[in-house]
Amino acid sequence: MSRKRFEKMNCAAAQALEQIGDWWTLLIVREALYGTKTFSGFQAHLGIAKNILTGRLEALVEHGVLTRRQTKPGAGRYEYLPAEKGEALLPVLVALMQWGDMWVFGGKGPVEIIDSKDRRPVKQMAVEAFDGRGLGIRDLRFRPGSAASEETLARFRAKANPITDS
Amino acid sequence: MSRKRFEKMNCAAAQALEQIGDWWTLLIVREALYGTKTFSGFQAHLGIAKNILTGRLEALVEHGVLTRRQTKPGAGRYEYLPAEKGEALLPVLVALMQWGDMWVFGGKGPVEIIDSKDRRPVKQMAVEAFDGRGLGIRDLRFRPGSAASEETLARFRAKANPITDS
Repeated sequence: MSRKRFEKMNCAAAQALEQIGDWWTLLIVREALYGTKTFSGFQAHLGIAKNILTGRLEALVEHGVLTRRQTKPGAGRYEYLPAEKGEALLPVLVALMQWGDMWVFGGKGPVEIIDSKDRRPVKQMAVEAFDGRGLGIRDLRFRPGSAASEETLARFRAKANPITDS
Repeated sequence: MSRKRFEKMNCAAAQALEQIGDWWTLLIVREALYGTKTFSGFQAHLGIAKNILTGRLEALVEHGVLTRRQTKPGAGRYEYLPAEKGEALLPVLVALMQWGDMWVFGGKGPVEIIDSKDRRPVKQMAVEAFDGRGLGIRDLRFRPGSAASEETLARFRAKANPITDS
């Protein structure tokens, strides 16, 4: 029931979560970005049940987040590689890991992400204005985008609504 | 069963998802960052069942993501406000919305996030090096952080492992 409602939500975050918003799915993408390619690799590093892993990999391929290819023609063995749509999740995953480092581990977490060139940790992800100024939630406003539904437009028209840009 | 395994994972993304990683939880945080404060507000905007909303709000307060306060002393009515730990999820949510805009809606999505000052959309979230250079997944390396467990350290020691920094 709650899933059904989700599909109809006119919200990019909700629709993104519809495709990648379960625990395992995002961690499988993390693992793929770490470089894991094989079913057994995902299984070993995530400790995930085979049937769940099978289902999640299928869904990720179906949504175009991962691509599946045969390791040898006709061999029936496959590997999974991040598609462009999967690589584009990097900012989401890095932001999530940095949040976990800070707010769950209280500072530096289990894994450091560094730049291969300067060997320094990557910058803290932050929301920035067009010119690079750092922005907090109080600096942001929201307005309907080109994919706004009637319901979304109505929400923005409602005067008492906190989302309203005014 | 899969939940149990999760709790033990020595990974900031997994631990972050343990606290905020279900569909509703992240959308409740989105709603709180939009400015929604009351139970009925969350309910109206998310179309979420009351019992589910009650549970998720309790968990978010327990984890320190939202704070709950009485609107009038003794009135038994409450409002929920993002705590610092909740506001710190802004980069995760903006990155997720931008990904949805691009990869689910094919460009501009339902809601545009703009800077209140210059009225322009916020910058695309990206992983950057210390000096601001843009980084893709191939530019990143991983190494154990100070909260690395024995298992994580073993993973980094394994030569054949793609996560290894070499």
